[in-house]
Amino acid sequence: MGSAEIPFGGPAASAGTVYLVGGGPGDPGLVGLRAARLLATATVVAYDRLAPPEALDLCRDDAELIYVGKQPDRHALAQDEINALLVAKARAGDAVVRFKGGDPFVLARGSEEAQACVAAGVPFEVVPAVTAGIAAPAYAGIPVTHRGAAPAFAVVTGHEDPTKGATQVDYDALARFPGTLLLYMGVGRVREIAAALVAAGKPVTTPVALVRWGTTRGNRR
Amino acid sequence: MGSAEIPFGGPAASAGTVYLVGGGPGDPGLVGLRAARLLATATVVAYDRLAPPEALDLCRDDAELIYVGKQPDRHALAQDEINALLVAKARAGDAVVRFKGGDPFVLARGSEEAQACVAAGVPFEVVPAVTAGIAAPAYAGIPVTHRGAAPAFAVVTGHEDPTKGATQVDYDALARFPGTLLLYMGVGRVREIAAALVAAGKPVTTPVALVRWGTTRGNRR
Repeated sequence: MGSAEIPFGGPAASAGTVYLVGGGPGDPGLVGLRAARLLATATVVAYDRLAPPEALDLCRDDAELIYVGKQPDRHALAQDEINALLVAKARAGDAVVRFKGGDPFVLARGSEEAQACVAAGVPFEVVPAVTAGIAAPAYAGIPVTHRGAAPAFAVVTGHEDPTKGATQVDYDALARFPGTLLLYMGVGRVREIAAALVAAGKPVTTPVALVRWGTTRGNRR
Repeated sequence: MGSAEIPFGGPAASAGTVYLVGGGPGDPGLVGLRAARLLATATVVAYDRLAPPEALDLCRDDAELIYVGKQPDRHALAQDEINALLVAKARAGDAVVRFKGGDPFVLARGSEEAQACVAAGVPFEVVPAVTAGIAAPAYAGIPVTHRGAAPAFAVVTGHEDPTKGATQVDYDALARFPGTLLLYMGVGRVREIAAALVAAGKPVTTPVALVRWGTTRGNRR
């Protein structure tokens, strides 16, 4: 595509700049106007395993598309490689979009990519996006807040860095959190998390929803 | 405008349907593709005080634009009126977009508008959006999560329903929350909230950012 005019999309992607662009939870209709404009004008697009693949149709025909999707078990090394790639491409004069699933700053590595740009003196822009914890329940008919019922919600990693030990997430405090709890990447630890919350006083009658492939055609709940 | 082609915007707004559409925190570039397509095809658009006004340029020339912005002090009455308006317009055969600031289900009244549609038998669709608590700090260079530092964030109302009393938000649990706290609409109670968190054990050295008009040209922090 590439030539699509996007209202309110702002200026085209600039040579020598890195754009940390959120793609939202999966439905390409949730991609933002600025994000679409940047995808349509970048010369390099480094995209995630979870970024909405349809949106890559917006890219220029001559754009270099680089799949940097990470396997769950080998984050650390790959992230360094991604950081280095973004910096190297920008320094080579490309207009670089790092196209990520969800929001770049919500339990993603966007802040580390921003740090890499700062360290390298490469200009960058962050484009926030719809986060799955809000949108996936919404598509399932569940509001994360509701007047009189839930005046708050919390987004918590369900897949902690094993090197941090178990104490980083205080399940006692979480069990008392006055609102909806949204666990990301929690499917592998769902039993332990539920047990910890109940042990800390969360009623066993608390309603629970599990969503996978939220907002996409593969949506299951 | 109205005729703008929006990639991945999905089908046009349907007669007799209510669309609860989030406009994001202020920057019209953060409006989503589905949201833009619905704005461009609705026959009635009921818009908020905080929905990005520029995005209304997308509307059809013959669309009826209705300002339903609420003053902070008279929520209750106005919300009933808004619910009734949405239902009446849809029943009259309009394709109705309810265009809201932020996300319709995050400390907004979108879930009540959805309930009104259900009660009236009017079909509706929810279009999630970028929420200010994530985007406004991002524009200020602050990630709400960061590996090794903040594995979670919480969005909490800073402007509780006065009829609920003070006990709905448990500041003791909030003070122990293992991540970033995002207080919405908290400017009027910032002293009391800070005092309550410190009294519950939050270190007085905890970094704090105040953002107003986040992501807009009036942005101050």
